[in-house]
Amino acid sequence: MIRIAVIGAGQWGPNLIRNFHSRDASEVVWVVDQSPARLEQARARFPDLRVAEDVAPVLADAGVDAVVVATPTSTHYALVRAALEHDKHVLVEKPITDDVVQAEELCALAAARGRVLMVGHVFLYNPAVTWVKHLIEAGDLGRIYYVSMVRTNLGPIRLDVDAGWDLASHDISIVNHWLAAAPERASATGGSWINPGVNDAVFATLRYPGGVLVHLQVSWLNPRKVRQITIVGERRMLTFDDMSLDEPLRLYDKQVTDERTLAPWTDTFASFRASVREGDITIPRVAMGEPLKIECGHFLDCIRGGQVPLSGGAEGLAVVRTLAAIQRSIVNAAREEAV
Amino acid sequence: MIRIAVIGAGQWGPNLIRNFHSRDASEVVWVVDQSPARLEQARARFPDLRVAEDVAPVLADAGVDAVVVATPTSTHYALVRAALEHDKHVLVEKPITDDVVQAEELCALAAARGRVLMVGHVFLYNPAVTWVKHLIEAGDLGRIYYVSMVRTNLGPIRLDVDAGWDLASHDISIVNHWLAAAPERASATGGSWINPGVNDAVFATLRYPGGVLVHLQVSWLNPRKVRQITIVGERRMLTFDDMSLDEPLRLYDKQVTDERTLAPWTDTFASFRASVREGDITIPRVAMGEPLKIECGHFLDCIRGGQVPLSGGAEGLAVVRTLAAIQRSIVNAAREEAV
Amino acid sequence: MIRIAVIGAGQWGPNLIRNFHSRDASEVVWVVDQSPARLEQARARFPDLRVAEDVAPVLADAGVDAVVVATPTSTHYALVRAALEHDKHVLVEKPITDDVVQAEELCALAAARGRVLMVGHVFLYNPAVTWVKHLIEAGDLGRIYYVSMVRTNLGPIRLDVDAGWDLASHDISIVNHWLAAAPERASATGGSWINPGVNDAVFATLRYPGGVLVHLQVSWLNPRKVRQITIVGERRMLTFDDMSLDEPLRLYDKQVTDERTLAPWTDTFASFRASVREGDITIPRVAMGEPLKIECGHFLDCIRGGQVPLSGGAEGLAVVRTLAAIQRSIVNAAREEAV
Amino acid sequence: MIRIAVIGAGQWGPNLIRNFHSRDASEVVWVVDQSPARLEQARARFPDLRVAEDVAPVLADAGVDAVVVATPTSTHYALVRAALEHDKHVLVEKPITDDVVQAEELCALAAARGRVLMVGHVFLYNPAVTWVKHLIEAGDLGRIYYVSMVRTNLGPIRLDVDAGWDLASHDISIVNHWLAAAPERASATGGSWINPGVNDAVFATLRYPGGVLVHLQVSWLNPRKVRQITIVGERRMLTFDDMSLDEPLRLYDKQVTDERTLAPWTDTFASFRASVREGDITIPRVAMGEPLKIECGHFLDCIRGGQVPLSGGAEGLAVVRTLAAIQRSIVNAAREEAV
Repeated sequence: MIRIAVIGAGQWGPNLIRNFHSRDASEVVWVVDQSPARLEQARARFPDLRVAEDVAPVLADAGVDAVVVATPTSTHYALVRAALEHDKHVLVEKPITDDVVQAEELCALAAARGRVLMVGHVFLYNPAVTWVKHLIEAGDLGRIYYVSMVRTNLGPIRLDVDAGWDLASHDISIVNHWLAAAPERASATGGSWINPGVNDAVFATLRYPGGVLVHLQVSWLNPRKVRQITIVGERRMLTFDDMSLDEPLRLYDKQVTDERTLAPWTDTFASFRASVREGDITIPRVAMGEPLKIECGHFLDCIRGGQVPLSGGAEGLAVVRTLAAIQRSIVNAAREEAV
Repeated sequence: MIRIAVIGAGQWGPNLIRNFHSRDASEVVWVVDQSPARLEQARARFPDLRVAEDVAPVLADAGVDAVVVATPTSTHYALVRAALEHDKHVLVEKPITDDVVQAEELCALAAARGRVLMVGHVFLYNPAVTWVKHLIEAGDLGRIYYVSMVRTNLGPIRLDVDAGWDLASHDISIVNHWLAAAPERASATGGSWINPGVNDAVFATLRYPGGVLVHLQVSWLNPRKVRQITIVGERRMLTFDDMSLDEPLRLYDKQVTDERTLAPWTDTFASFRASVREGDITIPRVAMGEPLKIECGHFLDCIRGGQVPLSGGAEGLAVVRTLAAIQRSIVNAAREEAV
Repeated sequence: MIRIAVIGAGQWGPNLIRNFHSRDASEVVWVVDQSPARLEQARARFPDLRVAEDVAPVLADAGVDAVVVATPTSTHYALVRAALEHDKHVLVEKPITDDVVQAEELCALAAARGRVLMVGHVFLYNPAVTWVKHLIEAGDLGRIYYVSMVRTNLGPIRLDVDAGWDLASHDISIVNHWLAAAPERASATGGSWINPGVNDAVFATLRYPGGVLVHLQVSWLNPRKVRQITIVGERRMLTFDDMSLDEPLRLYDKQVTDERTLAPWTDTFASFRASVREGDITIPRVAMGEPLKIECGHFLDCIRGGQVPLSGGAEGLAVVRTLAAIQRSIVNAAREEAV
Repeated sequence: MIRIAVIGAGQWGPNLIRNFHSRDASEVVWVVDQSPARLEQARARFPDLRVAEDVAPVLADAGVDAVVVATPTSTHYALVRAALEHDKHVLVEKPITDDVVQAEELCALAAARGRVLMVGHVFLYNPAVTWVKHLIEAGDLGRIYYVSMVRTNLGPIRLDVDAGWDLASHDISIVNHWLAAAPERASATGGSWINPGVNDAVFATLRYPGGVLVHLQVSWLNPRKVRQITIVGERRMLTFDDMSLDEPLRLYDKQVTDERTLAPWTDTFASFRASVREGDITIPRVAMGEPLKIECGHFLDCIRGGQVPLSGGAEGLAVVRTLAAIQRSIVNAAREEAV
């Protein structure tokens, strides 16, 4: 039985409490929040857990195996650091920090202490994302040319982070996972209309090893909620629409054929040197599964040994590095920045 | 009766011949093409017109009022220039040229000669595009924040121009028309996978006066044919899906409400300072109309006086300037370039 | 505080327990089920309620104000009757019974005892259904010509009732509510392929007063889950797609224009004497709301006086009469049967 | 070279003229129409053909091999009969006649004269319909349970025939072709609101040999143009959406599994005795092709020998018999009628 303390019972925290509390392998023993009202709500639903407004007694409790941090990003560094220094395993909500150096430090600390440090990039535990990962690894798409990702909705509009840090972090974690790589360079533009200095929309292009291009478009000022990803591969193409409950994935058996197989073609325009092959489209049946539940189970598996987190500190750091490079590029008139 | 000579009977030329020939106000008197086979086809369908492999006799024919140029872009400059020098009105396919200086020269020449110079940006004559133009001018959308434009399909892949020049020219002409402005700066990235040096996909951000941002995503390597535009305005939002025959436009009565109208809200996250208002969506009924037919009629109206072309030399030049800036930015690692 | 006993803790019962238990105006005091395992589950989640395997002590408990029956249809009659005879208010799951005479008897008994008898036709408490009801009452659609209703999915396949009783009961309750009427005659065909004698698909046409036609198509053997209703009115038309989370309703400003306004038209075919008017489509914003929560609140309001149930015994009886007529018509080779 | 006379140059006739005239294997030598204006239009486009206001000289012309009848249905019988009596091959628009006995007579006459009699059921020449036909014949769907067909739009509203004869004729021809059978019995309801006595909507159920049920829903009073067919088979299910240009077909790898493979399941409800198997969906790539062009080519192939028409007199007669049975059932209060 792994004993868990959850820090932060605001928006996402209650989901984590419920998940860890309903499993056989874990129990939530502490909930920490600055708000007494929230602590009361937590106790009303789960009468057997202890609550605190401060983390000190929790970290001092030798009965606590792991700490789950679901507080605002700006507080992550101090809380995660303290938990690791008390030899707790840590699951921290994404992004791990809002600062590259601090993220590096936390990774080093977790390694030094031999503790699990995992980041809540929950999309990596979405069965459809896993299905695509296997497809890419099996080579079914062939060499990847580019990935286009669109993530938009109308609100909520945040003040503490811009749309890039809020929304693009999901896409970066997904595509890093799929490509098993991190971007080398990033260029981006941002637009700020509602709150001065806070980007409401960000358009970014990431360059990965091997010439793979990833384009991100995120906005919280869009009339439609869109969660659309297109992967263009040499052999096949794929779309992932995360707004479609029953048909999120489509595998296109289409490709651009090699020009050498084409008969010569003379024309006034003389402009085409490749052709396309059309084919069937498959909408695969992907088994359902609640990503958060899978994520929490994975965290427990990692603690008990034998598994390295899919979204460990290193993966979380790669996302932060990319977001920071996007931010620098926006400031520097879209100039490409090293990640 | 306006007498027309059509230069180029390849892909698009026959549509222009048919259109001008079937009107009461115009007739096609010459068709010019380097290919005798094409000339023969043209005569088979329209026995009463004259054909030539060279433009010289056509330009020398005082009975010709206007010349329509539907040849590859690289030949536009010389043909348009010669036609204007022979005091013909000119309708030239888009883009007007592939070079900014040449386009400027043609505009100056048309002005000096007092001839109509119009560019075939046919989307400006699409009734749905016109409907949106009126909506924006009436202030129904309020201040425009940003416009996102996606134009993708699988092929055809060209060798003479990249996907930017081939596809983005449409979007730039549309958005310049809507905003009644041209972009000031452009940043862009391109990806080339099929033919070395030819971009298969281009991602570009354009900055317009007043802080309006326009994002373009074009690709001829996409499994789905997408023609999607989103306009985000202060008062309303609009989407235009040019692939939908019966419901291309959607007007969203949604907006981000002014933060001052909101009650104060204290929260651990303390992060939201604006909220959204949801509302009805309207799918307006837009009268149909063949854009090319409207374009050809507009050209004739301009010749007969009283109208300035919607897509005149100046508008065509603005598109070329933008495409050239996009191209420079791609070469310069996405750095913003003045248009 | 209204004290409730819930009979049946199988599929739907737990939702009713949770709903009535979480309100300020009611509490669940008893849960009855034949299965001890289920009773144990109920107590695990709601430790303060009493459980029983038999209804006798519950009906004898003078502290029980209302009984909620969520057991298989075949048991409804006896349970509801017993509850009414003990002067309890009753909310019974749909259909009220599987027999017209028994349903009539229950209605009479409730009236004689002065108790609320309500049937759980939960769709009547769906905000989108309510929105359409108001639209029709306001005359916005004009005279209703016909309503087409399709309700299909792949499974679950039942043995105790056919697809008509299982699925069409929803549609009948909705359309009776909208038209404020019950059908006069019904004709229907059924198809049985999986279990002999149990219809897997039913196609039925209902004739309402005033010449309104209602067509039902239900099936549990369909690859797609469809919940589509079309209302064709003289002035406007409306579609309701209950599978669309964000855009369930569409109001079409279309109509068939009166022929007298048309210019005479002579033609070899001479066949058209009416024309159509196309117009905008509106997707109205309808406030969300959990139908079951609204239903439970309505039941409590009815008990406390001042409200007549939207889905009372009479409404439940009308549904049963219609289902019985459909069943007779299926047996009688689709012959129209009086409802 | 097969020489063709086309009778009727109204709505559909010009398409037939153009098609037969543009082929190497046929030429149109006569066009007959009662309207001199139409004949003039025909000659303007095809200067080399002869025109007549009466059929007499055409039938007398021994140079005419085949007659194509594209006139109103009420005139079909007399024209086809006369053409066959003059030993011409005949292609007549659908439906072959509006009377069963007359249709039988024409079939007998064609057989006696040894002439091709073909009916213009153009949907049988739609490549997607052919694709489905092959799929069914190969047994890919398994035993067919039922077929649901919906064909609706807003207008045009006709006076000479009702929505059943106008619209359902298409669906009946398609499903007879797929099932290689004709229905045995039909029950139907109709609704008439615009023109007294003319059904604007028809709902019909057809019983085919082997227990296959076909349900038709047609209406010209529907806000949306729908052309949707669902085939439910024992092994697979298929949908055909003829309004989708690029993805008309979907093959669902779903089925209801045999109950004997299921573990016993005891439950209060005890109601499920079969389960469903979910699987991938395939959107097959179907080669395009203009149905009318394929139909005209098939007619020529049949004349030259070696092929029996897919939509011969017998097939046209089966459609008329079904439409007549539907009509009788509507009059007889939905009672099932023998076809």
